[in-house]
Amino acid sequence: MKTLIENIKKLNIDELNNLCKLIREEIINQVSKNGGHLSSNLGVVELSVAIHHLFDLKKNPLIFDVSHQIYAHKILTNRSLENLRQFKGISGFSEPSESEYDFFVAGHASTSISLAVGAAKAFALQKNDNFPIALIGDGSMGCGLAYEALNELGDKKYPSIIILNDNKMSISKPIGAVSKFLSCSLSSPFYQRFKKGVEGMLEYLPNSARFAAKRFEDGFKLLTPAGMFFEEMGLEYIGPIDGHNIEELIKSLKLACNLKKPVLLHVQTIKGYGYSHSQNDEGSWHGVSPFDIKSGKAIKNSNSKSITSIFSDILYELASKDEKIVGVSAAMPSGTGMDKLIKFYPDRFFDVGIAEAHAVTSMAAMSKCGFMPVVAIYSTFLQRAYDSLIHDAAIMNLNMLFAIDRAGIVGNDGKTHQGVFDISYLSCIPNFKICAPINESSLRLLLEYATSKVGLIAIRYARGAFMLDDSFKASLKSHYLINNNSDISFLCFGQEAYKAIKLSDEFNANVIDLVFAKPLDREFLLSLAKSSKKWFIFSSSLKIGGLYSIISAFLQEEKINDIKLVSFEYEDEFITHGDSSVVEESLGLDINSIKEKIKKELN
Amino acid sequence: MKTLIENIKKLNIDELNNLCKLIREEIINQVSKNGGHLSSNLGVVELSVAIHHLFDLKKNPLIFDVSHQIYAHKILTNRSLENLRQFKGISGFSEPSESEYDFFVAGHASTSISLAVGAAKAFALQKNDNFPIALIGDGSMGCGLAYEALNELGDKKYPSIIILNDNKMSISKPIGAVSKFLSCSLSSPFYQRFKKGVEGMLEYLPNSARFAAKRFEDGFKLLTPAGMFFEEMGLEYIGPIDGHNIEELIKSLKLACNLKKPVLLHVQTIKGYGYSHSQNDEGSWHGVSPFDIKSGKAIKNSNSKSITSIFSDILYELASKDEKIVGVSAAMPSGTGMDKLIKFYPDRFFDVGIAEAHAVTSMAAMSKCGFMPVVAIYSTFLQRAYDSLIHDAAIMNLNMLFAIDRAGIVGNDGKTHQGVFDISYLSCIPNFKICAPINESSLRLLLEYATSKVGLIAIRYARGAFMLDDSFKASLKSHYLINNNSDISFLCFGQEAYKAIKLSDEFNANVIDLVFAKPLDREFLLSLAKSSKKWFIFSSSLKIGGLYSIISAFLQEEKINDIKLVSFEYEDEFITHGDSSVVEESLGLDINSIKEKIKKELN
Repeated sequence: MKTLIENIKKLNIDELNNLCKLIREEIINQVSKNGGHLSSNLGVVELSVAIHHLFDLKKNPLIFDVSHQIYAHKILTNRSLENLRQFKGISGFSEPSESEYDFFVAGHASTSISLAVGAAKAFALQKNDNFPIALIGDGSMGCGLAYEALNELGDKKYPSIIILNDNKMSISKPIGAVSKFLSCSLSSPFYQRFKKGVEGMLEYLPNSARFAAKRFEDGFKLLTPAGMFFEEMGLEYIGPIDGHNIEELIKSLKLACNLKKPVLLHVQTIKGYGYSHSQNDEGSWHGVSPFDIKSGKAIKNSNSKSITSIFSDILYELASKDEKIVGVSAAMPSGTGMDKLIKFYPDRFFDVGIAEAHAVTSMAAMSKCGFMPVVAIYSTFLQRAYDSLIHDAAIMNLNMLFAIDRAGIVGNDGKTHQGVFDISYLSCIPNFKICAPINESSLRLLLEYATSKVGLIAIRYARGAFMLDDSFKASLKSHYLINNNSDISFLCFGQEAYKAIKLSDEFNANVIDLVFAKPLDREFLLSLAKSSKKWFIFSSSLKIGGLYSIISAFLQEEKINDIKLVSFEYEDEFITHGDSSVVEESLGLDINSIKEKIKKELN
Repeated sequence: MKTLIENIKKLNIDELNNLCKLIREEIINQVSKNGGHLSSNLGVVELSVAIHHLFDLKKNPLIFDVSHQIYAHKILTNRSLENLRQFKGISGFSEPSESEYDFFVAGHASTSISLAVGAAKAFALQKNDNFPIALIGDGSMGCGLAYEALNELGDKKYPSIIILNDNKMSISKPIGAVSKFLSCSLSSPFYQRFKKGVEGMLEYLPNSARFAAKRFEDGFKLLTPAGMFFEEMGLEYIGPIDGHNIEELIKSLKLACNLKKPVLLHVQTIKGYGYSHSQNDEGSWHGVSPFDIKSGKAIKNSNSKSITSIFSDILYELASKDEKIVGVSAAMPSGTGMDKLIKFYPDRFFDVGIAEAHAVTSMAAMSKCGFMPVVAIYSTFLQRAYDSLIHDAAIMNLNMLFAIDRAGIVGNDGKTHQGVFDISYLSCIPNFKICAPINESSLRLLLEYATSKVGLIAIRYARGAFMLDDSFKASLKSHYLINNNSDISFLCFGQEAYKAIKLSDEFNANVIDLVFAKPLDREFLLSLAKSSKKWFIFSSSLKIGGLYSIISAFLQEEKINDIKLVSFEYEDEFITHGDSSVVEESLGLDINSIKEKIKKELN
């Protein structure tokens, strides 16, 4: 496949179709081994091939939105998927350090049109003929950033092709008015009104004129509601196009290119296309772990229950007892465990689509009206609602619970998805409490407390299963998990406590569950500081702004100067992809590395 | 005016018009004394009166967007504007603690529809007939959050009235495709295509049928491009309505109310209406300082040049020499000093409207294409682009300069606008440098450095003028402004250095300009720690995540335990409005209070 990128320009339609078949097989094959995003990638094979066939992507950067759909492009740009998403292997997302054909990093949704506008501005200044090609899914279209960018693009008219990959799916079902009018091709109120008008008019016409009028109406049908929307936004609209028909794709792309204007190319694809198990995927084949190609069954299933599903069960139980509890997910109902609640309480639990800011702000209003909202968003995506957290939730000092899933290292998704910033960006916001459970009973206690209307609380927890069982007692205050009356104390926040427990014997250390990072249990720590002078912090957060910062400041404030403080949090750098345990090892944060570090510090 | 809120329901049109006149006079009168938002408030007097005349706002919360237009409502809800925006006086924005008629805090744009959706969900669950009324300006419509909320509202069809206050203005000129189609009533490509089609068809028709067809076309004209857009989004559309005609407003509001659906009421108003100087304001009467009503002239003009305008001049100079420098403002071209650059280099400097995330992400793409972007956004508004900072700017490690104006206490705008979080939320992001100038030459040096492509840099500076002149030498490294070889050191970051300078004699203290909060000049501080043991921090930031956190962590890392560290930064609470010096005094951060605190610490 070495010279593929040059040769693809010369292939005819049959050859391009054959190429698609090979690529599709390779994707299925590799994802079945390593896991990854499957159905989104299978949907855009023909599209990727058509783009590579027509364009020089060094001149016309192909900008992937979220880049859940970049595998075909990776194969076409000479990257093997052999070690996909593995440590030091190929990233599952767009990654400029891998290839000059990857314009930008992308792992969060809805950045592509904004990036295209920036690139188009650059090309305008450079006075070349380049133009950007953005590839964005219909799910990403509901997010504000996409709209902000369209709003400028339609006004300034930079030449560019925005390919709307419309598979009628976000990660799960699509949400909102926009996805509705994308799917209803001719059922919009406007079109209906128009049709009624034309029909009414036809009655008045003599037979001789009816033919002309009918022809006019037929011609008009080409302008779908989606077309009207984007033309109103100032873009040229071409579509809908069959996204699995190479010939049609090439024709439309050529047309779009020749317009030298911003063009919205509406391409309809089938998510999971070409693999019987994933075709017409309703969500379960979006991101998958390794599976058997023939049966479509996952090869190894984790036996232990994920924290997400424990959260889901407890919240369901609480919501059953208290009808004031309501909740929201931003396009991740299954990932955040909200799907069960949305199913059983569709009036109280909502999926608002990829719209994190709106999720937070709208729930803030529900809180003001007397409800107890639970906002379930991954750590990395909550960043997208930062001003809503400050300006809407915190200034109003409302009762709200933020259930922050995927805190800490998330594994194979890598640097765009690591949940490492939340403590740093939340702890500076007045009125926010931040806590973390170490096991199921601790999560239950925190959820019961947080839904009892005690202000703003963030509960953060890791991907995967709890590493500690319920033999460790839960409390709302800082407490000893193991008290050895030792000079050495392991201060733990959340999941990382399991490492401390495993190491405590070796060092005869106390193990403390801090429970809250904010407010700190100052009384407990003041008392601890009298008897124990060597503190080691276990938390899946950044040192900067995380527990190391928080406890350093506490010690300064209290003028305590005889504590040795060491932290096993993350350094000031982005953290790469790979199996979580391998990544932790690379950071020196696996149990063995931590053991060696503690030994060294104690010498 | 005590019983106004009850009596207004009974007034006839003439009396309502008279009331508007009185309210308008009161607004002009009070704003002329204290300053505030003038033209936006004058534009919605009739609208506010009509809403209060018709609705019980305890049942139908009136949700103000940005609340630049809330003064008439404040008067109507028995609040005197006597001490508007003064310390302990009435806030310039929506403030629930002042009145049960203020549903929510609002000082940032585009939250109202999202809040309305939340309130509507609450009413649906409470099974009452209440519905929310959101009042949003056309400028706020360009922001993603408004769109995310519309997208859900149009899908879920909660009864609600969204009043689009269309004055064809944001704070300055409106931006983007949406504002364009709001203003062009019948010139959209769709309408033009439709018209051409109808005209073409008319040719085929016998005379007898032309009349019917023409009538059809005329009827069709009622559907403006704005109407089409909002109907596509799933809302009922009513408009455009003359926003200064009480009778028409009441009629339309009744109609909207009776639909029991989400309705977009498109109201056209004149910004600054009813005061000769502000009418048809192009931006200068949006926010004003005290002025003479007759002449329209500001009463006291500050003599000293603002940091913003110094920034603007230096950037203009640098941009003239280096054509790679480009820049962006998010609807604040004049407030951020970018107006001059947009005027002289319209191809390189952009106003993208109220779209902070798009501003950052699109400029990140320009940087990737070889340009040197300057993103000029107030500290408080940069919060709205947080994920763009992490996911697009920092992961890519691009060359970008963030010019963060209004850092620290901003004065009369109060808690929604304080620029106090930026160091906390930026310092945890890898690849970011954060610096602050103490005077003009320091700002120049930092801007020259930051535009020389050295990665991601944030330069933060205060509202108003520099308090130190250029007799203090500038440097890119931490350095002594005053070196008294003292045990006492004042560590300064940015503007607050002037307080340290004023107090240094009294305490024979060293005064140090840190220049960078990140990365810290560790070498300098290590050396300082050897000779000077009492450190006092001067910075207009939060203790949590600010310089106190940063330096505490540094001392812990370096195992330095003999430094007394005291900080004059802000505590963990939201800071109220008022004259900046009065607010500082209330926080104990004026020079005298600081002096007393230092004395106490030294005893």
